[in-house]
Amino acid sequence: MSARVFEHDWTCRFADADPFGIAHYPDIVVAIHDVSDRFMSQIGCSWATMAREHDAGMPILEVHVEFASPIHADDVVTISLAPSLGERSARFSYEGRHADGTLAFTGYEQRAYVERGADHASPIPDWLREAMAPYEEAE
Amino acid sequence: MSARVFEHDWTCRFADADPFGIAHYPDIVVAIHDVSDRFMSQIGCSWATMAREHDAGMPILEVHVEFASPIHADDVVTISLAPSLGERSARFSYEGRHADGTLAFTGYEQRAYVERGADHASPIPDWLREAMAPYEEAE
Amino acid sequence: MSARVFEHDWTCRFADADPFGIAHYPDIVVAIHDVSDRFMSQIGCSWATMAREHDAGMPILEVHVEFASPIHADDVVTISLAPSLGERSARFSYEGRHADGTLAFTGYEQRAYVERGADHASPIPDWLREAMAPYEEAE
Amino acid sequence: MSARVFEHDWTCRFADADPFGIAHYPDIVVAIHDVSDRFMSQIGCSWATMAREHDAGMPILEVHVEFASPIHADDVVTISLAPSLGERSARFSYEGRHADGTLAFTGYEQRAYVERGADHASPIPDWLREAMAPYEEAE
Repeated sequence: MSARVFEHDWTCRFADADPFGIAHYPDIVVAIHDVSDRFMSQIGCSWATMAREHDAGMPILEVHVEFASPIHADDVVTISLAPSLGERSARFSYEGRHADGTLAFTGYEQRAYVERGADHASPIPDWLREAMAPYEEAE
Repeated sequence: MSARVFEHDWTCRFADADPFGIAHYPDIVVAIHDVSDRFMSQIGCSWATMAREHDAGMPILEVHVEFASPIHADDVVTISLAPSLGERSARFSYEGRHADGTLAFTGYEQRAYVERGADHASPIPDWLREAMAPYEEAE
Repeated sequence: MSARVFEHDWTCRFADADPFGIAHYPDIVVAIHDVSDRFMSQIGCSWATMAREHDAGMPILEVHVEFASPIHADDVVTISLAPSLGERSARFSYEGRHADGTLAFTGYEQRAYVERGADHASPIPDWLREAMAPYEEAE
Repeated sequence: MSARVFEHDWTCRFADADPFGIAHYPDIVVAIHDVSDRFMSQIGCSWATMAREHDAGMPILEVHVEFASPIHADDVVTISLAPSLGERSARFSYEGRHADGTLAFTGYEQRAYVERGADHASPIPDWLREAMAPYEEAE
């Protein structure tokens, strides 16, 4: 059975392009992070909502991106996000594809679930686990 | 007769918010600039297309923004853009409104039309003038 | 008598440059805002310190920048900041100059002094007024 | 024998901090990228200079960062960069340390040497190899 898919079309803007007309890679990381916020909103809990209503966050432990082909200004890249849940952390896996299906990048963010002020991760609460489950990649 | 209206809904993300939960103002300027690129795309000529196909740009002469009310993370702000055309420059007027209609900010960018390498502005070409005209504010 | 001068040398990086090799103007606004934080640190109260220790901030009411000449990647621009104090607000005036003295831009930020959660500005406290005074422009 | 060390002190600004007062991780990636530009300037060839004078660049193939401890607004983090040179690519290894020596993050960028318009990497030219060599990590 296939998982529900979360995708967002990101357009590389002139302001994201370097003198070669190619996306500055930190702007791609900003776009990836933006997709994480859109995904969380989609499941009912943006990062801001999590901070405000649950007094918790999912700070980053690790980020990794491999770039397969250059992204030019005006290119529309479809960025997909699939979560994989651990006990106290989650991996958000990303894939960016050009309009013709060519791979632009793959990557992931590893994030812990941490309550405000705590110096260690807490178990991911059930409500969050259930909200993410439909988008989780099948084993 | 009323002009055609260009609008874009911008969501203030967690990554745009400061420790008070309020948007960092440079991020609002980034959002305004992003709307200029979306508007140019809408009329068929993003900033990147203008650079690539017309070897020209519309560099900024002046930017001004007045902030009427704070924008919090997760707020959706509708940003409108209306151009006013001069001989060699254009003013892009912006208005940002919260979902309940409250004014968030007003501002403008004054931009010149400049061909690559030139040290002075050129007349705005007719094709560009015609593409912007439907969105121009009535006097 | 001349005021004490606050200046910071900002280098326009490759990542700040557009396909023409010229600074994206939102990145100049980021640089200006960064100078405000460096100035506040210099007088003993960065924006973060003000938030943490005084539970207050100086949110932006208005920002205005006029661009006099293009800034290219690798250009070093000396940005000066001079505050002018009102009762409940302050104007930070900025000037950016190229290494040869040519004007790159002038601008200002108008900022109010606001305590956390308040919906109106408060008088600028004496300690802050005294810290800024040496840098204030003579009338 | 130890290599020459390249370091830059980065201050996390209010504008880099989220509602918890902790650095947004994309801003840390921006800071890392900024250090790469400072390093290249130090050895006589900023990214902009490489583009302008050598018509080449070192686009990113891979970026990886592991975050060891949170960075708060006003924290000064010393970021070091050490290159490791391959035939056609280089790895820039980064380490960020708080003022008390605590590790904040480690990471790397893998970059290829590519001439403008080419669809494959070229050998790193000797002048660049020699300029980087003094900073290279000993085996």
